[in-house]
Amino acid sequence: MKHDGLFIVIEGLEGAGKSTALSVIQQWLEQRFPGRELVNTREPGGTPLAEEIRAIWKAPREEPMAPMTELLMVYACRAQLVETVIKPALARGAVVLGDRHDLSSLAYQGGGRGLAEPVSALSGITLGTFKPDLTLYLDIDPAIGLERARQRGELDRIEQEQLDFFQRARQCYQSAAAEDDNILEIDASQPMAAVHQAIVTALESRL
Amino acid sequence: MKHDGLFIVIEGLEGAGKSTALSVIQQWLEQRFPGRELVNTREPGGTPLAEEIRAIWKAPREEPMAPMTELLMVYACRAQLVETVIKPALARGAVVLGDRHDLSSLAYQGGGRGLAEPVSALSGITLGTFKPDLTLYLDIDPAIGLERARQRGELDRIEQEQLDFFQRARQCYQSAAAEDDNILEIDASQPMAAVHQAIVTALESRL
Repeated sequence: MKHDGLFIVIEGLEGAGKSTALSVIQQWLEQRFPGRELVNTREPGGTPLAEEIRAIWKAPREEPMAPMTELLMVYACRAQLVETVIKPALARGAVVLGDRHDLSSLAYQGGGRGLAEPVSALSGITLGTFKPDLTLYLDIDPAIGLERARQRGELDRIEQEQLDFFQRARQCYQSAAAEDDNILEIDASQPMAAVHQAIVTALESRL
Repeated sequence: MKHDGLFIVIEGLEGAGKSTALSVIQQWLEQRFPGRELVNTREPGGTPLAEEIRAIWKAPREEPMAPMTELLMVYACRAQLVETVIKPALARGAVVLGDRHDLSSLAYQGGGRGLAEPVSALSGITLGTFKPDLTLYLDIDPAIGLERARQRGELDRIEQEQLDFFQRARQCYQSAAAEDDNILEIDASQPMAAVHQAIVTALESRL
């Protein structure tokens, strides 16, 4: 898909500081591309339909969710968001700023749940060669990140997973960042000002 | 998966007469296997979680649903039903009677939507080699079937498709029945008594 748009994604474990990072990136983008359309998305979700699936997906429930069900629901959301929001926005030349994307599935369902093979297959079926122009990955020790998330309040179904689940997810994130030039790893355990500076430096080096 | 259970599925277009066929099959099964556990399922759906996804999936909505989203939602439901209901029931030795299963995806999303390749890939990822012991396919001209469905009341999102969508689905059903010995085609345009006799004959020939 050739287009004039720009698709930037922020990734990281719970409590890595994605939300504040998103506002830093957004501010930087507004200065760098004044007047350009900016579209914010989040995954899973980002369209009314995908948000309905997200709500079912996130809610803790008695019925155990089969790992493949969890994975297929995420890709259903992703297909909907990419086809009806992201691709049309990029075709208009917009900058799309995504709170999570495909790399989250690789980390959480691929690493966390041990479903690397189906994740890779589903990614191919759903996205083909479509991928972000740049991904910023905020790296944090899950023990620290989860403690931050807990302090924010009630934990959702995913946040209730055990520590080793997030450790496997982190390993996947780190490997992906090491292998893919379009994924930049940022040490999110630094003081907030240093993290924000690292984000701006990363953006300036690439855009 | 080796087990002592039996998985029988009924398939067909809207208005083919699946509901009455299901009660004929159920009655026959109760006589043939007295005292044996019988589990009824329907797809998409069949568990509380899958029924929630089904409700979102069926509802007509303004937001256009991407074809891949529709397909992935069906497989999310199927994964949940197979892993948490059907496989455990078969392992207990139960007879499972399914209102639709994987063949519906081949027909509706594969044939109707032209997504044969992703359907085949998703079927492999989600089900592996798992499949019904016997499928009864009720064949009906979609023009007749849809007229019957219309007389029942409001049409759901799928039932609102155009005639050629269902014609493509029917072709897929017919080809599958011609190729697979475990799929028996029954002419559902006959008088009801003859259809029911054909169902009983099919069951007696195979079970």
